[in-house]
Amino acid sequence: MTAPTRQECRRFHQAALDLAARARRIVRRAVPGRLGVRRKPDRSLVTDVDLGVERALRAEITNRFPSHGIIGEELPPRLPTAAYQWILDPVDGTLSFVHGLPLFGTIVALHHHGRPVAGVIDHPMLGTTYSAGRGLGAWRNGTRLRIRDAARTDLGDEIVSAADRSRFVELGAGRAFDRLVRTHRHVRGYYDCVAHSWAAEGSIGAVVDYGVRLWDLAATRLLVEEAGGRYVVCATRGDGAEARYGIIAGKPNVVRWLVGIFGRRT
Amino acid sequence: MTAPTRQECRRFHQAALDLAARARRIVRRAVPGRLGVRRKPDRSLVTDVDLGVERALRAEITNRFPSHGIIGEELPPRLPTAAYQWILDPVDGTLSFVHGLPLFGTIVALHHHGRPVAGVIDHPMLGTTYSAGRGLGAWRNGTRLRIRDAARTDLGDEIVSAADRSRFVELGAGRAFDRLVRTHRHVRGYYDCVAHSWAAEGSIGAVVDYGVRLWDLAATRLLVEEAGGRYVVCATRGDGAEARYGIIAGKPNVVRWLVGIFGRRT
Repeated sequence: MTAPTRQECRRFHQAALDLAARARRIVRRAVPGRLGVRRKPDRSLVTDVDLGVERALRAEITNRFPSHGIIGEELPPRLPTAAYQWILDPVDGTLSFVHGLPLFGTIVALHHHGRPVAGVIDHPMLGTTYSAGRGLGAWRNGTRLRIRDAARTDLGDEIVSAADRSRFVELGAGRAFDRLVRTHRHVRGYYDCVAHSWAAEGSIGAVVDYGVRLWDLAATRLLVEEAGGRYVVCATRGDGAEARYGIIAGKPNVVRWLVGIFGRRT
Repeated sequence: MTAPTRQECRRFHQAALDLAARARRIVRRAVPGRLGVRRKPDRSLVTDVDLGVERALRAEITNRFPSHGIIGEELPPRLPTAAYQWILDPVDGTLSFVHGLPLFGTIVALHHHGRPVAGVIDHPMLGTTYSAGRGLGAWRNGTRLRIRDAARTDLGDEIVSAADRSRFVELGAGRAFDRLVRTHRHVRGYYDCVAHSWAAEGSIGAVVDYGVRLWDLAATRLLVEEAGGRYVVCATRGDGAEARYGIIAGKPNVVRWLVGIFGRRT
């Protein structure tokens, strides 16, 4: 269980960026109205593009890193006991993607024994790529991200992203959600990974996201922490690949304030 | 009160696009963190960029169309009794702009005796420009927009944008808002003009926007109607420049369904 060296982290960070760039080319070639949209058993949407991206990334990972495992949203795990695991969400925010809204993204991350080593969130239609490598900082389109914390007296001016009340209810946080919405002026419902990207760059004070799965979160912790922010798991439900999480990530003082409302996993 | 000719509509449509392009250049030059942010008496935000854009557009309009009036969000009206009135919102979505979120826009519209002649919503950071001229169609970055109506059996799959419950309550529509959120799976809170743009291109089924002012709406009706959509005023409060409106705009069948929930101005 030797941790990856700094040089390995650099190489994996670059590999994650390469994979995201490959995904972006496939997504941008997609023709609106011919996406091959279907519903999965859980009623969420999947398209031929989701599957095409995941297959392309799996082929590239298997080729470059044959001993590494792969966990993707759309296809079965590969080498589930390997120390290194690539975690992929080819199109996070499929509802937005299908409707032509630019707020979706591709998530690519590498974990080593469960600890994040590299992570990328790429937004093909916004033209922004957020990436981080362990010990290497967080970046947006090549510019270093450094979160400036909010003053504790100015928390009322911070935008907090929290969407989908029903998913908070499912994880027992319906009352906390209502309390936040009732008492804070700037709660906005930014969905999916774009809210995580905006938290990592400090555009919003924090994202509170409940009901998310492993691949939805795979890049977020490293992105936010390498940018100087704070990441807290507040709730979990279920185990293994089925587990759903509630997390808060963003500026340290905003996260502390919100953990006071939502609590944290004990 | 001769209505503008088709040729005049073309000229005014191009002028509105020119003005929006000028605004975009100023907005893109703005340096994050040095925007000169202040609070207006109504507690909403204004920046030096809002004022700089409005001043630049006013100078250009006064120069090209000296007999036309101007109504802008940030400065006093010019020639308020003129037949032609330019209506300007230099930065719609100032909260997003100040925080570095790309969801704001510039609104430029020309009305003749209260009827829209040309309208533009420009999103400098999304790289999208939506425009329409009376009888000339609606356009996005030079491509004609044609809304495909939703089948009445598929309304449940349509995204409806509705944000800020408090503004619905102010216009007496709090119960209608709650009914929509309780009964429809895909209600999302997209704020400001980007929700109007997405309704005009049919990415979302409809936008329901309450508490908005004249300049927030100045381009929306023409954009949506020229794209083949429907626009309905559901509520008003107050008079003249102080008036606040509640509107629904988007795909005809989605708008009809929502008017059944929210009612319309009688």
